[in-house]
Amino acid sequence: METPIDRRSFLASAATTAGIVLLKTAMGQTIQAAGHPLSAAKDQVLHDPTHTPGPPPSAIGTRSRFETIKLAPSDTSSRTPLQSLYGIITPSDLHFQRHHGGVPTIDPTKYELLIHGMVDRPTVFTLRDLKRYPALSRICFLECSGNYRGNKPELTPQDICGLTSQAEWTGILLSNLFREVGVQPKATWFLAEGGDAAVMTRSIPIHKGWDDAMIAYGQNGEALRPEQGYPARLLLPGWEGNTNVKWIRRIQVTDKPFMTREETSKYTYALKDGKYSQFNFFMDARSIITFPTYPLQIDKGWVEIRGLAWSGRGRIDRVDISTDAGRSWHPANLNGPVLDKAHTRFTYLWNWDGNETEILSRAVDDTGYIQPTLAEITALRGADLGYHLNPITAWYIQRDGQVFFKPPATKKS
Amino acid sequence: METPIDRRSFLASAATTAGIVLLKTAMGQTIQAAGHPLSAAKDQVLHDPTHTPGPPPSAIGTRSRFETIKLAPSDTSSRTPLQSLYGIITPSDLHFQRHHGGVPTIDPTKYELLIHGMVDRPTVFTLRDLKRYPALSRICFLECSGNYRGNKPELTPQDICGLTSQAEWTGILLSNLFREVGVQPKATWFLAEGGDAAVMTRSIPIHKGWDDAMIAYGQNGEALRPEQGYPARLLLPGWEGNTNVKWIRRIQVTDKPFMTREETSKYTYALKDGKYSQFNFFMDARSIITFPTYPLQIDKGWVEIRGLAWSGRGRIDRVDISTDAGRSWHPANLNGPVLDKAHTRFTYLWNWDGNETEILSRAVDDTGYIQPTLAEITALRGADLGYHLNPITAWYIQRDGQVFFKPPATKKS
Repeated sequence: METPIDRRSFLASAATTAGIVLLKTAMGQTIQAAGHPLSAAKDQVLHDPTHTPGPPPSAIGTRSRFETIKLAPSDTSSRTPLQSLYGIITPSDLHFQRHHGGVPTIDPTKYELLIHGMVDRPTVFTLRDLKRYPALSRICFLECSGNYRGNKPELTPQDICGLTSQAEWTGILLSNLFREVGVQPKATWFLAEGGDAAVMTRSIPIHKGWDDAMIAYGQNGEALRPEQGYPARLLLPGWEGNTNVKWIRRIQVTDKPFMTREETSKYTYALKDGKYSQFNFFMDARSIITFPTYPLQIDKGWVEIRGLAWSGRGRIDRVDISTDAGRSWHPANLNGPVLDKAHTRFTYLWNWDGNETEILSRAVDDTGYIQPTLAEITALRGADLGYHLNPITAWYIQRDGQVFFKPPATKKS
Repeated sequence: METPIDRRSFLASAATTAGIVLLKTAMGQTIQAAGHPLSAAKDQVLHDPTHTPGPPPSAIGTRSRFETIKLAPSDTSSRTPLQSLYGIITPSDLHFQRHHGGVPTIDPTKYELLIHGMVDRPTVFTLRDLKRYPALSRICFLECSGNYRGNKPELTPQDICGLTSQAEWTGILLSNLFREVGVQPKATWFLAEGGDAAVMTRSIPIHKGWDDAMIAYGQNGEALRPEQGYPARLLLPGWEGNTNVKWIRRIQVTDKPFMTREETSKYTYALKDGKYSQFNFFMDARSIITFPTYPLQIDKGWVEIRGLAWSGRGRIDRVDISTDAGRSWHPANLNGPVLDKAHTRFTYLWNWDGNETEILSRAVDDTGYIQPTLAEITALRGADLGYHLNPITAWYIQRDGQVFFKPPATKKS
């Protein structure tokens, strides 16, 4: 936002047809304004919503019938339409979904969470019990660690990395329950088990449970949605989505990981030496431009580049933007609040000269970590791509303004 | 949260029936835990959601069928169920509504905003035009200045002050448009006109337009809801709801207020000397305990008092809690982020001894303003109550734990 702007040029490329519009004001005056064809003015009068009272307040609000944004579901997951959203809160019904046994129906009056194992007092908690502990809310993202596609130019942000969403989560610190049940000093891990048909299980280091892990029962002001673990889920801020076990029903405190299916055959990735990396909890810093992106076509002149950046290790410190295919980088504006382990909105004003180019974003978090290119990732890991891919994403802009995703090279050129 | 807590006592009053539960684990073990009757365990098995895969990801998420929170609509307004919500974000479909001519249906492709009057370049902006300006998002509250009821003990927070809600709003600064059209130096006011059947009009001091006024087109990550002004509304952070004109279609820049119906016969309030106070823009600091409240009944022991505080003049600096009918006050915990002109969540741990009492909250904002009692308000204004009532709210707790609203005295006792 440091760039001086010719403000008049903002509208130049969206110039309206010359003409006159007669508009009746609330004061009964008839006023005349430039920039509007008479035919449109007539049409305006015919559809004037001031002529008929609309419906009264409703028991529940609705989305406009002119808005059609949707998740893009497959049999096992659905993707948040990042390119259609504003700000940092994902509407609850547009939060990405990734299920391993579908969405269970759980009666909250029958819900129970058992904590046992290396504890002094094995205890079953009802939902009512959980809600008696000190509540806290935090805004943070959740991202599936399989959140990457990049095989063709006709991809939207939703296609590329729509398996990330953000909510204001409400619940209690798991550490409250650890104290309640008396977790024993020798405990080093705990198993989290979900109540879905997959009986999802993951082993979590005990320190996360003592740190910021939550049992969440609220999402964006209301109860969790069924798709997000109703009535209660594990929330591990900044850690891979799969470990944030939904519909949580059991926690077993132990001194070693359980080596479940989801942490042995799945959610591991190949390294160059034939070994596999296991227990990759942190979601590293990432960013994506959400505007302008495929399939949009832009006009020459001022364009506000907009996007999201996040890090599972802390706050976003900076987002750099390149509008010359990576040759030079300039800091974007961060639209606060810039929160810990949270989607952060960035913007960057750019005056496009009409030549073909590529625009890119690069997140830097407060640990100093810099979002890598895919070539840098494969140089470290090898070309057998898997989970935890967070490469810099480039958008190619043709001379006619058409925007395409640019599939990244896997090797340094 | 400074108080040392006997953590074991948390669950004492929610103690489950003694018994044994046999729970089959994911590992195939049968484990035994205390605190659960066999009959419930049998029932649990019958309804075990792990036995049948649930539905796959959906194109749009849904609320659980076990959750029934709703707005409480009348013919002209609906109230947010504050006592049922968590955190600080109001789900968009539960945002309060106050309409003067119902909810208009506006086609976003036909939407236009005219800015004229004391400007160099009268201009009509389409929605597409507006979205080309630098976007920003901010989390702030909106409150109707008629947001008070207090006539009987059987009132919920929704009944008393449900005409306040909070969203993450996205849009552009009105100052961008003021520069674009060349607002003239002698301009001191502007008229904002809505496109509803009431053709809502309000006069706004020009300085608010140069300060933080926005034309908002986004709400909680998506397009505005129709009930909140789709496709665009005026947003005046911290100012009375009615001035935040929805479905905004015209701004006329002037050098005096227009004295519309909504700022002469309405939205004014009586003073003691027979005069009326007009143009009362700021929503002063206020708080309300949302838990425990009518019609709940609480148990003796630890209770976390929870509520919301906000100020139209800045940030919440402090919320004081009294659990002894106002004799002593203690600071509550503020659950961040504590944002400018925003609902802020507070909590306070209280060990109820089982005697009848009253619990109260009192907000203090960063201007030093202290939320008054109703007696203090009427001492200043007289007993002819009207708009802008933000009194301290007390909840009476009977010996049996039943909670009632306590209608406040209008005169100091």
